[in-house]
Amino acid sequence: MIQYKAVTPAIVAELSQIVGDKYVCTDKDKMEDYSHDAVTGDKYVYYPEVVVVPKTAAEIAAIVRIANRETIPVIPRGAGTGYACAAVAFGGGIMVSTERLDQILEFDEANLLMVVEPGVRTSEVQKAAHGRGYLYAGEPSSGDSSFIGGNVATNAGGIKAVKYGTTRQQVLGLEIVTAEGEIVTLGGKVKKDATGYNLAQLIIGSEGTLGIITKVYIRVMPRPQKVMDLLAVFPSVDASIAIVAKIMQSGILPVSVEFMDNKGIRCCEEYLNEKLPHSETGNYIIVSIEGDSEEALEDQCIEIDELCSANGANFVLVADPVKIWKARKSFGEANRARSLIFSAEDIVVPVAAIADVVKKLAELGERYQLTIHCVAHAADGNVHADILKEDLPMEVWEQKLPLLQEEIYEFVYSIGGKLSGEHGIGYKRLELMEKFTNPVELKLMRAVKKALDPQGIMNPGKIFHIE
Amino acid sequence: MIQYKAVTPAIVAELSQIVGDKYVCTDKDKMEDYSHDAVTGDKYVYYPEVVVVPKTAAEIAAIVRIANRETIPVIPRGAGTGYACAAVAFGGGIMVSTERLDQILEFDEANLLMVVEPGVRTSEVQKAAHGRGYLYAGEPSSGDSSFIGGNVATNAGGIKAVKYGTTRQQVLGLEIVTAEGEIVTLGGKVKKDATGYNLAQLIIGSEGTLGIITKVYIRVMPRPQKVMDLLAVFPSVDASIAIVAKIMQSGILPVSVEFMDNKGIRCCEEYLNEKLPHSETGNYIIVSIEGDSEEALEDQCIEIDELCSANGANFVLVADPVKIWKARKSFGEANRARSLIFSAEDIVVPVAAIADVVKKLAELGERYQLTIHCVAHAADGNVHADILKEDLPMEVWEQKLPLLQEEIYEFVYSIGGKLSGEHGIGYKRLELMEKFTNPVELKLMRAVKKALDPQGIMNPGKIFHIE
Repeated sequence: MIQYKAVTPAIVAELSQIVGDKYVCTDKDKMEDYSHDAVTGDKYVYYPEVVVVPKTAAEIAAIVRIANRETIPVIPRGAGTGYACAAVAFGGGIMVSTERLDQILEFDEANLLMVVEPGVRTSEVQKAAHGRGYLYAGEPSSGDSSFIGGNVATNAGGIKAVKYGTTRQQVLGLEIVTAEGEIVTLGGKVKKDATGYNLAQLIIGSEGTLGIITKVYIRVMPRPQKVMDLLAVFPSVDASIAIVAKIMQSGILPVSVEFMDNKGIRCCEEYLNEKLPHSETGNYIIVSIEGDSEEALEDQCIEIDELCSANGANFVLVADPVKIWKARKSFGEANRARSLIFSAEDIVVPVAAIADVVKKLAELGERYQLTIHCVAHAADGNVHADILKEDLPMEVWEQKLPLLQEEIYEFVYSIGGKLSGEHGIGYKRLELMEKFTNPVELKLMRAVKKALDPQGIMNPGKIFHIE
Repeated sequence: MIQYKAVTPAIVAELSQIVGDKYVCTDKDKMEDYSHDAVTGDKYVYYPEVVVVPKTAAEIAAIVRIANRETIPVIPRGAGTGYACAAVAFGGGIMVSTERLDQILEFDEANLLMVVEPGVRTSEVQKAAHGRGYLYAGEPSSGDSSFIGGNVATNAGGIKAVKYGTTRQQVLGLEIVTAEGEIVTLGGKVKKDATGYNLAQLIIGSEGTLGIITKVYIRVMPRPQKVMDLLAVFPSVDASIAIVAKIMQSGILPVSVEFMDNKGIRCCEEYLNEKLPHSETGNYIIVSIEGDSEEALEDQCIEIDELCSANGANFVLVADPVKIWKARKSFGEANRARSLIFSAEDIVVPVAAIADVVKKLAELGERYQLTIHCVAHAADGNVHADILKEDLPMEVWEQKLPLLQEEIYEFVYSIGGKLSGEHGIGYKRLELMEKFTNPVELKLMRAVKKALDPQGIMNPGKIFHIE
């Protein structure tokens, strides 16, 4: 066991020297924002010993070197929009916020890429690309508030991953501060790279446990001119999910294929106080397609309509994009409004197994007498199941939830699925990670962690236990 | 320095027990095929002490455990089509050929993926997908002979990477035998995965230095119905390269954008004994586009034609695909025919810098009085420059080449480029890798290597020196 040291006043003074007094905070009242992420519940609230808000990679490197010298945990922090408590200081330490590394450094049109600092909001990246006629294809649902650095650290997915992949596929390179406080660029402006190990790909999704991201090279592409959103309403979960493979095999490559179950739809409806189409009994499949000509889109639209209708859809509508995406994106908030405490599961399974998972969740929900709402990035096999505490006494909830999760993931792993499709493991799923991950894989991960962070200071207590 | 042990008769006997006498070879005559890859020249020929040809992952694991116990190098071997000597036994040891792990295990249409063994030829994977109406998008030029396992180990690129990415983007999961002889699956049938470190992505491109690939999960997609190849002929390198960014910014996403310089074209022409269009002075840009309708392709075709013509192309033709790709793919063979000894450089730079590289190569070729022919996967920034020895005395060649390479890569690194876009480092580029890679990055790579292969037995002497 690593023995971490406390942050002493002398260390706080040293940190102030690096970043300036103004950007060092040890005042509990002012640290509230940094004490949690999007996961609710007192047990997920922890205060760091100090929050530092550096401006440059060099400052971050200097901070990390102090932490290394003293063996103090360093918790990299983005916008705090995560669903896994990866950016919460469960073991004290120095929280390094990237909010002041907030510059778009370069828009390199000739090379179709942008160079951005980690603290730029995802939506700002999207807007900067959009304004020049380009698309940045990463689009997590939290994009209005999340930072691009956090997207990279968690390999954020989102609603466009069907066509464009997750954040991993958008990244050409990273500058990081290593766990030993050195600054290094991995990858860069090259589109292909077979020059040794691809360490950037290893850092992506490592949730701040291997280093701190200080610069991101991301690709952009010409923006498709036309987008169209279709809503197909099915009477059953089975029928709605069955259409997904049919669409994906048709030769049409949609941008998004989203599933919402009936309970989830009604919950959003209630939260938004808006009637959603056919919400009485319907299950939704939302399909977005994009292209450069109205014609091409219309052809695809007709094909999808025919496919859905022939496969049991009761209704296929051209959806109002604002309304339908507002509904879809409100899912988390709607559940939170229903039940402040809830567990957002991020199950990922082979695409064809989604219906099995949704049915299993329904069965388990009934057996455990817990409300579970489901949406899915259906063509990615990624099921978000929100399990609601509602008015259950806390001690019953805390007893029931782990048992339910265990049954869920026993099933998920038995069909080739995994714990997280896009939210990551963080602190919240660590015990499940330890339980369900192949021990050899876990051993390899620990070995990599030990190799790149010998002192174990980078975001300890996240993803897996360091042994 | 690790002290490796020799392969004794007792160990050969043990290996025979694992795989059967028939599949163990120590006879030098029979090992000739295994003594080199596609790199020519005596200095790149080395014999392993023994070649073992196992049938299963379990057999490979047993072999690796022996190597671990004894500290003997293990050299994983695919089809031997590499251009970096990554699969050549420069320090003796046990060569493990994957040629008998040659089964397509599963075509999972519902999940749009295939599960294949590493010894399946890339072209067989392509055919299996094609036969069912699907596309496997990996297409290295050596695809007719290369193994899919080798493609993964080197993160092979090829002519379709512009649209579909390199092999990395095709892989959903890997089964590997670790350097300690354990079998583990990383990733799998899930399209997204944020469940801890993405070790599969780390293994991809690690050239057999971190483990042996024994199973590959790759994605397939509906096959585009129509393909069209255009040939634009430009009077100068500058004009031809300048069109690449314009095409990529137009909103058209081609499958391939290939560049051939005039000297390269003439060399291929001579080798094939076939007249190529406008070969007198032309530089080629070959653009392939694909889609599902004739109409859509024609629209794109007209747009590309107009773009090229407005930007200095002398001719834009719809190319005979067989002829033009035969010419393009013969580039390596044509150079080999001109000069058995040649150095195939695999420079990668930001796309917009290709013209600078090609001009620099022309200037250096003149100064060193060496023939250099260039082709490029232009929209990927990947320049293959073949430097020909021709009739230069060997000692002069061996003196000149490193000096020339040093000047090339000084330049390449100064503009943000790298040593290898798709061929890898292997043994051939190791010294250049050591020289030009950021020391911090190299340190991180070495740390990862040490973590995952503590005994240093997996393909030692490749990519970088183990310290």
